[in-house]
Amino acid sequence: MHATQPKAVVLLSGGLDSATVLAIAREQGYACYALSFDYGQRHRCELAAAERIAETLGAIDHRTIRLDLRAIGGSALTDDAIEVPSAPSEGIPVTYVPARNTVFLSLALGWAEVLGAGHIFIGVNAVDYSGYPDCRPEFIRAYEAMANLATKAAVEGHPMRLHTPLIDLSKAEIILAGHRLGVDYGLTLSCYNPDLLGNACGVCDSCRLRSAGFAAAGVVDPTPYQVRTQGSHTLKQP
Amino acid sequence: MHATQPKAVVLLSGGLDSATVLAIAREQGYACYALSFDYGQRHRCELAAAERIAETLGAIDHRTIRLDLRAIGGSALTDDAIEVPSAPSEGIPVTYVPARNTVFLSLALGWAEVLGAGHIFIGVNAVDYSGYPDCRPEFIRAYEAMANLATKAAVEGHPMRLHTPLIDLSKAEIILAGHRLGVDYGLTLSCYNPDLLGNACGVCDSCRLRSAGFAAAGVVDPTPYQVRTQGSHTLKQP
Repeated sequence: MHATQPKAVVLLSGGLDSATVLAIAREQGYACYALSFDYGQRHRCELAAAERIAETLGAIDHRTIRLDLRAIGGSALTDDAIEVPSAPSEGIPVTYVPARNTVFLSLALGWAEVLGAGHIFIGVNAVDYSGYPDCRPEFIRAYEAMANLATKAAVEGHPMRLHTPLIDLSKAEIILAGHRLGVDYGLTLSCYNPDLLGNACGVCDSCRLRSAGFAAAGVVDPTPYQVRTQGSHTLKQP
Repeated sequence: MHATQPKAVVLLSGGLDSATVLAIAREQGYACYALSFDYGQRHRCELAAAERIAETLGAIDHRTIRLDLRAIGGSALTDDAIEVPSAPSEGIPVTYVPARNTVFLSLALGWAEVLGAGHIFIGVNAVDYSGYPDCRPEFIRAYEAMANLATKAAVEGHPMRLHTPLIDLSKAEIILAGHRLGVDYGLTLSCYNPDLLGNACGVCDSCRLRSAGFAAAGVVDPTPYQVRTQGSHTLKQP
Protein backbone atom coordinates (compact mmCIF):
# COMPACT_ATOMS: atom_id res chain seq x y z
CA MET A 1 0.00 0.00 0.00
CA HIS A 2 1.29 3.41 -1.02
CA ALA A 3 1.16 6.11 1.69
CA THR A 4 -0.89 8.48 -0.48
CA GLN A 5 -3.58 5.95 -1.41
CA PRO A 6 -7.00 7.28 -0.39
CA LYS A 7 -8.84 5.06 2.10
CA ALA A 8 -12.22 3.55 1.28
CA VAL A 9 -14.67 1.45 3.25
CA VAL A 10 -16.15 -1.23 0.97
CA LEU A 11 -19.37 -3.00 1.96
CA LEU A 12 -18.79 -6.70 1.37
CA SER A 13 -21.62 -9.19 1.69
CA GLY A 14 -19.92 -12.26 0.30
CA GLY A 15 -22.03 -12.03 -2.86
CA LEU A 16 -21.08 -11.55 -6.50
CA ASP A 17 -21.83 -7.81 -6.67
CA SER A 18 -19.87 -6.65 -3.63
CA ALA A 19 -16.85 -8.82 -4.54
CA THR A 20 -16.80 -7.06 -7.90
CA VAL A 21 -17.01 -3.68 -6.16
CA LEU A 22 -14.00 -4.53 -3.99
CA ALA A 23 -11.99 -5.49 -7.08
CA ILE A 24 -13.00 -2.23 -8.80
CA ALA A 25 -12.16 -0.07 -5.77
CA ARG A 26 -8.75 -1.67 -5.51
CA GLU A 27 -8.15 -1.25 -9.27
CA GLN A 28 -9.04 2.46 -8.89
CA GLY A 29 -6.21 2.82 -6.35
CA TYR A 30 -8.05 2.84 -3.03
CA ALA A 31 -6.72 1.27 0.15
CA CYS A 32 -9.76 -0.90 0.88
CA TYR A 33 -11.27 -1.64 4.29
CA ALA A 34 -13.94 -4.31 3.85
CA LEU A 35 -16.98 -4.32 6.13
CA SER A 36 -19.45 -7.18 6.60
CA PHE A 37 -22.44 -7.72 8.88
CA ASP A 38 -23.48 -10.67 10.93
CA TYR A 39 -27.12 -9.60 11.08
CA GLY A 40 -28.81 -12.85 11.92
CA GLN A 41 -29.14 -13.83 8.27
CA ARG A 42 -30.04 -17.46 7.65
CA HIS A 43 -27.17 -18.09 5.28
CA ARG A 44 -24.17 -17.76 7.57
CA CYS A 45 -21.77 -19.15 4.96
CA GLU A 46 -22.01 -15.66 3.36
CA LEU A 47 -19.68 -14.43 6.10
CA ALA A 48 -17.09 -17.13 5.43
CA ALA A 49 -17.30 -16.17 1.75
CA ALA A 50 -16.75 -12.47 2.60
CA GLU A 51 -13.67 -13.40 4.63
CA ARG A 52 -12.12 -15.34 1.75
CA ILE A 53 -12.96 -12.62 -0.78
CA ALA A 54 -11.47 -9.82 1.37
CA GLU A 55 -8.26 -11.80 1.64
CA THR A 56 -7.91 -12.81 -1.99
CA LEU A 57 -8.76 -9.30 -3.25
CA GLY A 58 -6.21 -7.59 -0.99
CA ALA A 59 -8.33 -5.66 1.52
CA ILE A 60 -6.13 -3.91 4.14
CA ASP A 61 -8.54 -4.94 6.88
CA HIS A 62 -11.88 -6.76 7.13
CA ARG A 63 -14.29 -6.28 10.01
CA THR A 64 -17.58 -7.99 10.68
CA ILE A 65 -20.07 -6.13 12.86
CA ARG A 66 -22.59 -8.18 14.79
CA LEU A 67 -26.02 -6.60 14.52
CA ASP A 68 -29.10 -8.51 15.52
CA LEU A 69 -31.74 -7.57 12.95
CA ARG A 70 -33.84 -10.49 14.18
CA ALA A 71 -34.88 -8.13 17.01
CA ILE A 72 -37.03 -6.28 14.46
CA GLY A 73 -37.66 -9.09 11.91
CA GLY A 74 -39.77 -8.28 8.88
CA SER A 75 -37.80 -10.17 6.23
CA ALA A 76 -37.54 -13.76 5.05
CA LEU A 77 -33.79 -13.40 5.62
CA THR A 78 -34.07 -12.49 9.31
CA ASP A 79 -37.39 -13.96 10.40
CA ASP A 80 -37.97 -17.71 10.53
CA ALA A 81 -41.72 -17.17 10.21
CA ILE A 82 -41.31 -15.83 6.65
CA GLU A 83 -40.38 -18.39 3.99
CA VAL A 84 -37.92 -17.71 1.15
CA PRO A 85 -39.90 -18.11 -2.08
CA SER A 86 -38.64 -20.51 -4.75
CA ALA A 87 -40.68 -18.95 -7.57
CA PRO A 88 -40.20 -15.45 -9.07
CA SER A 89 -42.20 -12.84 -7.14
CA GLU A 90 -43.91 -9.56 -8.06
CA GLY A 91 -42.99 -6.16 -6.54
CA ILE A 92 -40.71 -5.85 -3.50
CA PRO A 93 -39.81 -9.40 -2.44
CA VAL A 94 -40.10 -10.82 1.09
CA THR A 95 -36.30 -11.17 1.14
CA TYR A 96 -36.11 -7.35 1.41
CA VAL A 97 -34.51 -6.49 4.78
CA PRO A 98 -36.11 -3.27 6.10
CA ALA A 99 -33.81 -0.26 5.66
CA ARG A 100 -30.85 -2.60 5.12
CA ASN A 101 -28.68 -0.42 2.91
CA THR A 102 -29.45 2.60 5.10
CA VAL A 103 -28.26 0.66 8.15
CA PHE A 104 -25.18 -0.80 6.45
CA LEU A 105 -24.13 2.56 4.98
CA SER A 106 -24.51 4.16 8.41
CA LEU A 107 -22.11 1.68 9.97
CA ALA A 108 -19.72 2.12 7.03
CA LEU A 109 -19.92 5.85 7.71
CA GLY A 110 -19.01 5.27 11.34
CA TRP A 111 -15.99 3.14 10.45
CA ALA A 112 -14.94 5.61 7.74
CA GLU A 113 -14.95 8.32 10.38
CA VAL A 114 -12.75 6.24 12.69
CA LEU A 115 -10.35 5.45 9.81
CA GLY A 116 -10.30 8.96 8.39
CA ALA A 117 -11.61 7.54 5.10
CA GLY A 118 -13.48 9.82 2.70
CA HIS A 119 -14.94 7.12 0.46
CA ILE A 120 -17.55 4.39 0.79
CA PHE A 121 -18.21 1.79 -1.91
CA ILE A 122 -21.51 -0.09 -2.14
CA GLY A 123 -22.64 -2.59 -4.77
CA VAL A 124 -26.18 -1.33 -5.34
CA ASN A 125 -27.63 -1.84 -8.77
CA ALA A 126 -30.56 0.03 -10.28
CA VAL A 127 -30.99 -2.26 -13.31
CA ASP A 128 -31.67 -5.57 -11.59
CA TYR A 129 -32.72 -4.03 -8.31
CA SER A 130 -35.76 -6.28 -7.78
CA GLY A 131 -37.81 -3.37 -6.43
CA TYR A 132 -35.52 -2.55 -3.49
CA PRO A 133 -36.02 1.19 -2.87
CA ASP A 134 -32.57 1.62 -1.31
CA CYS A 135 -30.78 0.65 -4.53
CA ARG A 136 -31.95 3.67 -6.54
CA PRO A 137 -29.66 6.58 -7.57
CA GLU A 138 -31.91 9.16 -5.85
CA PHE A 139 -31.55 7.28 -2.56
CA ILE A 140 -27.75 7.22 -2.90
CA ARG A 141 -27.62 10.99 -3.60
CA ALA A 142 -29.83 11.74 -0.58
CA TYR A 143 -27.71 9.47 1.60
CA GLU A 144 -24.52 11.24 0.54
CA ALA A 145 -26.06 14.65 1.30
CA MET A 146 -27.08 13.44 4.76
CA ALA A 147 -23.67 11.86 5.42
CA ASN A 148 -21.99 15.16 4.68
CA LEU A 149 -23.92 16.73 7.56
CA ALA A 150 -23.59 13.80 9.94
CA THR A 151 -19.95 13.45 10.86
CA LYS A 152 -17.13 15.16 12.68
CA ALA A 153 -15.05 14.90 9.48
CA ALA A 154 -17.78 16.62 7.46
CA VAL A 155 -18.02 19.40 10.05
CA GLU A 156 -14.26 19.84 9.70
CA GLY A 157 -14.47 20.11 5.90
CA HIS A 158 -13.63 16.59 4.71
CA PRO A 159 -16.45 15.43 2.46
CA MET A 160 -17.67 11.83 2.27
CA ARG A 161 -18.17 10.37 -1.18
CA LEU A 162 -20.39 7.37 -1.94
CA HIS A 163 -19.32 5.22 -4.88
CA THR A 164 -21.74 2.90 -6.68
CA PRO A 165 -19.73 1.52 -9.60
CA LEU A 166 -22.35 -1.13 -10.45
CA ILE A 167 -25.41 1.09 -10.40
CA ASP A 168 -25.97 1.19 -14.18
CA LEU A 169 -24.58 -2.22 -15.09
CA SER A 170 -26.49 -5.35 -16.02
CA LYS A 171 -25.61 -8.57 -14.19
CA ALA A 172 -23.68 -9.71 -17.29
CA GLU A 173 -21.67 -6.46 -17.36
CA ILE A 174 -20.86 -6.82 -13.64
CA ILE A 175 -19.62 -10.36 -14.22
CA LEU A 176 -17.50 -9.28 -17.19
CA ALA A 177 -15.96 -6.42 -15.17
CA GLY A 178 -15.07 -8.71 -12.27
CA HIS A 179 -13.86 -11.47 -14.59
CA ARG A 180 -11.44 -8.99 -16.21
CA LEU A 181 -10.15 -8.02 -12.73
CA GLY A 182 -9.60 -11.64 -11.76
CA VAL A 183 -12.45 -12.08 -9.26
CA ASP A 184 -12.94 -15.76 -8.45
CA TYR A 185 -16.74 -15.95 -8.47
CA GLY A 186 -16.56 -19.53 -7.21
CA LEU A 187 -15.80 -17.96 -3.80
CA THR A 188 -18.90 -15.75 -3.82
CA LEU A 189 -22.39 -16.68 -2.63
CA SER A 190 -25.56 -14.99 -3.86
CA CYS A 191 -28.20 -17.61 -3.02
CA TYR A 192 -30.99 -16.80 -0.53
CA ASN A 193 -31.34 -20.48 0.36
CA PRO A 194 -27.97 -22.26 0.32
CA ASP A 195 -27.32 -25.60 1.99
CA LEU A 196 -24.99 -25.91 4.97
CA LEU A 197 -21.96 -26.32 2.69
CA GLY A 198 -22.74 -23.04 0.89
CA ASN A 199 -24.07 -24.69 -2.27
CA ALA A 200 -26.62 -22.51 -4.09
CA CYS A 201 -30.25 -23.62 -4.52
CA GLY A 202 -30.44 -22.52 -8.16
CA VAL A 203 -34.11 -21.53 -7.92
CA CYS A 204 -34.43 -18.40 -5.75
CA ASP A 205 -34.66 -14.94 -7.37
CA SER A 206 -31.00 -14.26 -6.64
CA CYS A 207 -29.78 -17.56 -8.14
CA ARG A 208 -31.87 -17.06 -11.29
CA LEU A 209 -30.48 -13.56 -11.85
CA ARG A 210 -26.93 -14.71 -11.24
CA SER A 211 -27.16 -17.76 -13.48
CA ALA A 212 -28.70 -15.74 -16.32
CA GLY A 213 -25.89 -13.18 -15.88
CA PHE A 214 -23.16 -15.77 -16.45
CA ALA A 215 -25.02 -17.09 -19.49
CA ALA A 216 -25.42 -13.58 -20.97
CA ALA A 217 -21.78 -12.71 -20.23
CA GLY A 218 -20.56 -15.90 -21.87
CA VAL A 219 -18.52 -16.68 -18.75
CA VAL A 220 -18.51 -20.20 -17.29
CA ASP A 221 -20.65 -20.23 -14.12
CA PRO A 222 -18.39 -21.50 -11.30
CA THR A 223 -21.22 -21.51 -8.72
CA PRO A 224 -21.42 -24.69 -6.65
CA TYR A 225 -25.07 -25.77 -6.95
CA GLN A 226 -27.00 -28.24 -4.83
CA VAL A 227 -27.76 -31.55 -6.54
CA ARG A 228 -31.57 -31.69 -6.63
CA THR A 229 -34.44 -32.43 -8.91
CA GLN A 230 -36.64 -29.44 -9.67
CA GLY A 231 -39.78 -30.29 -11.63
CA SER A 232 -38.69 -32.27 -14.66
CA HIS A 233 -35.02 -31.22 -14.81
CA THR A 234 -31.97 -31.79 -12.66
CA LEU A 235 -29.93 -28.69 -11.83
CA LYS A 236 -26.30 -28.80 -12.80
CA GLN A 237 -23.57 -29.29 -10.24
CA PRO A 238 -19.99 -28.05 -10.43
CA MET B 1 -54.26 2.08 23.09
CA HIS B 2 -56.87 3.46 20.69
CA ALA B 3 -57.04 1.80 17.28
CA THR B 4 -56.53 5.08 15.42
CA GLN B 5 -53.44 6.17 17.36
CA PRO B 6 -50.54 6.73 14.96
CA LYS B 7 -47.52 4.52 15.64
CA ALA B 8 -44.14 6.00 16.49
CA VAL B 9 -40.72 4.48 17.11
CA VAL B 10 -39.02 6.35 19.98
CA LEU B 11 -35.26 6.09 20.45
CA LEU B 12 -34.70 5.46 24.14
CA SER B 13 -31.19 5.50 25.60
CA GLY B 14 -32.05 5.38 29.29
CA GLY B 15 -30.97 9.01 29.68
CA LEU B 16 -32.87 12.11 30.71
CA ASP B 17 -33.50 13.48 27.22
CA SER B 18 -34.92 10.37 25.58
CA ALA B 19 -37.17 9.62 28.59
CA THR B 20 -38.61 13.11 28.17
CA VAL B 21 -39.14 12.48 24.46
CA LEU B 22 -41.07 9.28 25.20
CA ALA B 23 -43.33 11.16 27.64
CA ILE B 24 -43.91 13.91 25.04
CA ALA B 25 -44.67 11.43 22.22
CA ARG B 26 -47.18 9.63 24.42
CA GLU B 27 -48.77 12.94 25.47
CA GLN B 28 -49.11 13.86 21.79
CA GLY B 29 -51.20 10.72 21.24
CA TYR B 30 -48.73 8.32 19.63
CA ALA B 31 -48.65 4.59 20.27
CA CYS B 32 -44.99 4.38 21.25
CA TYR B 33 -42.53 1.61 20.36
CA ALA B 34 -39.32 2.21 22.29
CA LEU B 35 -35.99 1.17 20.77
CA SER B 36 -32.67 0.82 22.59
CA PHE B 37 -29.22 -0.39 21.57
CA ASP B 38 -26.79 -2.68 23.28
CA TYR B 39 -23.80 -1.29 21.37
CA GLY B 40 -20.97 -2.36 23.63
CA GLN B 41 -21.21 0.81 25.71
CA ARG B 42 -19.32 0.76 29.00
CA HIS B 43 -22.32 1.78 31.06
CA ARG B 44 -24.61 -1.22 30.68
CA CYS B 45 -26.93 -0.02 33.44
CA GLU B 46 -28.27 2.41 30.80
CA LEU B 47 -30.15 -0.53 29.28
CA ALA B 48 -31.78 -1.48 32.58
CA ALA B 49 -32.79 2.17 32.94
CA ALA B 50 -34.32 2.16 29.43
CA GLU B 51 -36.33 -0.94 30.30
CA ARG B 52 -37.77 0.65 33.45
CA ILE B 53 -38.53 3.93 31.65
CA ALA B 54 -40.30 2.21 28.73
CA GLU B 55 -42.50 0.36 31.21
CA THR B 56 -43.36 3.30 33.46
CA LEU B 57 -44.06 5.61 30.52
CA GLY B 58 -46.42 3.16 28.82
CA ALA B 59 -44.53 2.09 25.68
CA ILE B 60 -46.50 -0.56 23.72
CA ASP B 61 -43.29 -2.50 23.12
CA HIS B 62 -39.58 -2.08 23.88
CA ARG B 63 -36.84 -3.78 21.85
CA THR B 64 -33.11 -3.71 22.37
CA ILE B 65 -30.95 -4.37 19.33
CA ARG B 66 -27.50 -5.81 19.90
CA LEU B 67 -24.97 -4.00 17.73
CA ASP B 68 -21.28 -4.38 18.37
CA LEU B 69 -19.82 -0.91 17.77
CA ARG B 70 -16.63 -2.09 19.49
CA ALA B 71 -15.80 -3.70 16.13
CA ILE B 72 -15.07 -0.19 14.81
CA GLY B 73 -14.16 1.59 18.08
CA GLY B 74 -13.25 5.27 17.90
CA SER B 75 -15.06 6.52 21.02
CA ALA B 76 -14.37 6.58 24.73
CA LEU B 77 -17.78 4.91 25.11
CA THR B 78 -16.93 1.88 22.94
CA ASP B 79 -13.15 1.62 23.09
CA ASP B 80 -11.33 0.71 26.31
CA ALA B 81 -8.16 2.41 25.01
CA ILE B 82 -9.85 5.86 25.15
CA GLU B 83 -10.49 7.28 28.61
CA VAL B 84 -13.64 9.22 29.58
CA PRO B 85 -12.49 12.72 30.58
CA SER B 86 -13.44 14.09 33.97
CA ALA B 87 -12.79 17.73 33.04
CA PRO B 88 -14.77 19.84 30.51
CA SER B 89 -13.35 19.43 26.98
CA GLU B 90 -13.11 21.69 23.93
CA GLY B 91 -14.74 20.87 20.56
CA ILE B 92 -16.18 17.44 19.79
CA PRO B 93 -15.56 15.25 22.85
CA VAL B 94 -13.98 11.77 22.82
CA THR B 95 -17.30 10.38 24.04
CA TYR B 96 -18.66 11.07 20.55
CA VAL B 97 -19.63 7.71 18.99
CA PRO B 98 -18.93 7.87 15.23
CA ALA B 99 -22.14 8.28 13.21
CA ARG B 100 -24.19 7.18 16.23
CA ASN B 101 -27.43 9.00 15.54
CA THR B 102 -27.21 8.07 11.85
CA VAL B 103 -26.90 4.40 12.83
CA PHE B 104 -29.64 4.53 15.49
CA LEU B 105 -32.07 6.38 13.21
CA SER B 106 -31.43 3.81 10.48
CA LEU B 107 -32.41 0.95 12.76
CA ALA B 108 -35.43 2.94 13.96
CA LEU B 109 -36.34 3.36 10.30
CA GLY B 110 -36.11 -0.40 9.80
CA TRP B 111 -38.37 -1.15 12.76
CA ALA B 112 -40.79 1.60 11.71
CA GLU B 113 -41.07 -0.09 8.34
CA VAL B 114 -41.81 -3.46 9.94
CA LEU B 115 -44.43 -1.87 12.24
CA GLY B 116 -45.98 0.32 9.55
CA ALA B 117 -45.11 3.38 11.68
CA GLY B 118 -44.76 6.76 9.99
CA HIS B 119 -43.06 8.58 12.88
CA ILE B 120 -39.68 8.45 14.60
CA PHE B 121 -38.86 10.44 17.74
CA ILE B 122 -35.28 11.27 18.73
CA GLY B 123 -34.04 13.40 21.63
CA VAL B 124 -31.39 15.42 19.83
CA ASN B 125 -30.72 18.87 21.14
CA ALA B 126 -29.04 21.71 19.27
CA VAL B 127 -28.61 24.00 22.28
CA ASP B 128 -26.47 21.81 24.53
CA TYR B 129 -25.24 19.60 21.73
CA SER B 130 -21.59 19.59 22.84
CA GLY B 131 -20.36 19.78 19.26
CA TYR B 132 -22.03 16.58 18.03
CA PRO B 133 -22.68 17.13 14.32
CA ASP B 134 -25.58 14.66 14.21
CA CYS B 135 -27.66 16.73 16.66
CA ARG B 136 -28.10 19.73 14.34
CA PRO B 137 -31.40 20.63 12.61
CA GLU B 138 -29.80 20.50 9.13
CA PHE B 139 -28.71 16.92 9.78
CA ILE B 140 -32.23 15.94 10.85
CA ARG B 141 -33.79 17.52 7.74
CA ALA B 142 -31.28 15.72 5.47
CA TYR B 143 -31.94 12.44 7.29
CA GLU B 144 -35.69 12.77 6.81
CA ALA B 145 -35.24 13.50 3.10
CA MET B 146 -33.07 10.39 2.73
CA ALA B 147 -35.49 8.24 4.77
CA ASN B 148 -38.30 9.19 2.43
CA LEU B 149 -36.38 7.65 -0.47
CA ALA B 150 -35.12 4.62 1.46
CA THR B 151 -38.11 2.47 2.31
CA LYS B 152 -40.81 0.31 0.82
CA ALA B 153 -43.39 2.45 2.67
CA ALA B 154 -41.96 5.65 1.14
CA VAL B 155 -42.05 4.11 -2.34
CA GLU B 156 -45.71 3.27 -1.69
CA GLY B 157 -46.51 6.86 -0.67
CA HIS B 158 -46.41 6.73 3.14
CA PRO B 159 -43.97 9.43 4.29
CA MET B 160 -41.71 9.07 7.32
CA ARG B 161 -41.60 11.97 9.73
CA LEU B 162 -38.74 12.65 12.16
CA HIS B 163 -39.72 14.39 15.40
CA THR B 164 -37.17 16.23 17.54
CA PRO B 165 -39.24 17.84 20.30
CA LEU B 166 -36.17 18.81 22.35
CA ILE B 167 -34.12 20.36 19.58
CA ASP B 168 -34.55 24.00 20.67
CA LEU B 169 -34.89 23.47 24.43
CA SER B 170 -32.33 24.15 27.12
CA LYS B 171 -31.60 21.35 29.60
CA ALA B 172 -33.72 23.22 32.18
CA GLU B 173 -36.65 23.46 29.76
CA ILE B 174 -36.37 19.73 28.97
CA ILE B 175 -36.47 18.91 32.67
CA LEU B 176 -39.46 21.18 33.25
CA ALA B 177 -41.33 19.57 30.33
CA GLY B 178 -40.68 16.06 31.62
CA HIS B 179 -41.42 17.05 35.20
CA ARG B 180 -44.83 18.35 34.10
CA LEU B 181 -45.51 15.00 32.34
CA GLY B 182 -44.56 12.99 35.43
CA VAL B 183 -41.21 11.59 34.25
CA ASP B 184 -39.32 10.05 37.18
CA TYR B 185 -35.80 11.30 36.45
CA GLY B 186 -34.47 9.17 39.28
CA LEU B 187 -34.88 6.24 36.86
CA THR B 188 -32.79 7.87 34.12
CA LEU B 189 -29.03 7.70 33.70
CA SER B 190 -27.00 10.33 31.83
CA CYS B 191 -23.52 9.76 33.28
CA TYR B 192 -20.64 8.65 31.01
CA ASN B 193 -18.88 7.00 33.95
CA PRO B 194 -21.37 5.46 36.39
CA ASP B 195 -20.42 2.85 38.98
CA LEU B 196 -21.75 -0.71 38.76
CA LEU B 197 -24.91 0.23 40.66
CA GLY B 198 -25.73 2.98 38.15
CA ASN B 199 -24.73 5.86 40.44
CA ALA B 200 -23.57 8.92 38.48
CA CYS B 201 -20.00 10.25 38.75
CA GLY B 202 -21.08 13.90 38.99
CA VAL B 203 -18.01 15.18 37.12
CA CYS B 204 -18.24 14.12 33.45
CA ASP B 205 -19.59 16.57 30.83
CA SER B 206 -22.96 14.85 30.85
CA CYS B 207 -23.33 14.94 34.66
CA ARG B 208 -22.36 18.63 34.79
CA LEU B 209 -24.93 19.57 32.14
CA ARG B 210 -27.65 17.52 33.82
CA SER B 211 -26.95 18.83 37.30
CA ALA B 212 -26.87 22.44 36.10
CA GLY B 213 -30.19 21.78 34.32
CA PHE B 214 -31.95 20.71 37.50
CA ALA B 215 -30.55 23.75 39.31
CA ALA B 216 -31.71 26.13 36.55
CA ALA B 217 -35.15 24.48 36.39
CA GLY B 218 -35.58 24.73 40.14
CA VAL B 219 -36.42 21.01 40.24
CA VAL B 220 -34.90 18.77 42.93
CA ASP B 221 -32.20 16.60 41.33
CA PRO B 222 -33.15 12.95 42.05
CA THR B 223 -29.94 11.57 40.49
CA PRO B 224 -28.21 8.93 42.60
CA TYR B 225 -24.59 10.15 42.80
CA GLN B 226 -21.51 8.20 43.84
CA VAL B 227 -20.12 9.12 47.25
CA ARG B 228 -16.61 10.40 46.47
CA THR B 229 -14.27 13.22 47.26
CA GLN B 230 -13.49 15.41 44.28
CA GLY B 231 -10.81 18.03 44.97
CA SER B 232 -11.86 19.83 48.11
CA HIS B 233 -15.59 19.03 48.11
CA THR B 234 -17.69 15.91 48.58
CA LEU B 235 -20.41 15.37 46.01
CA LYS B 236 -23.93 15.00 47.34
CA GLN B 237 -25.66 11.67 47.49
CA PRO B 238 -29.38 10.98 47.40
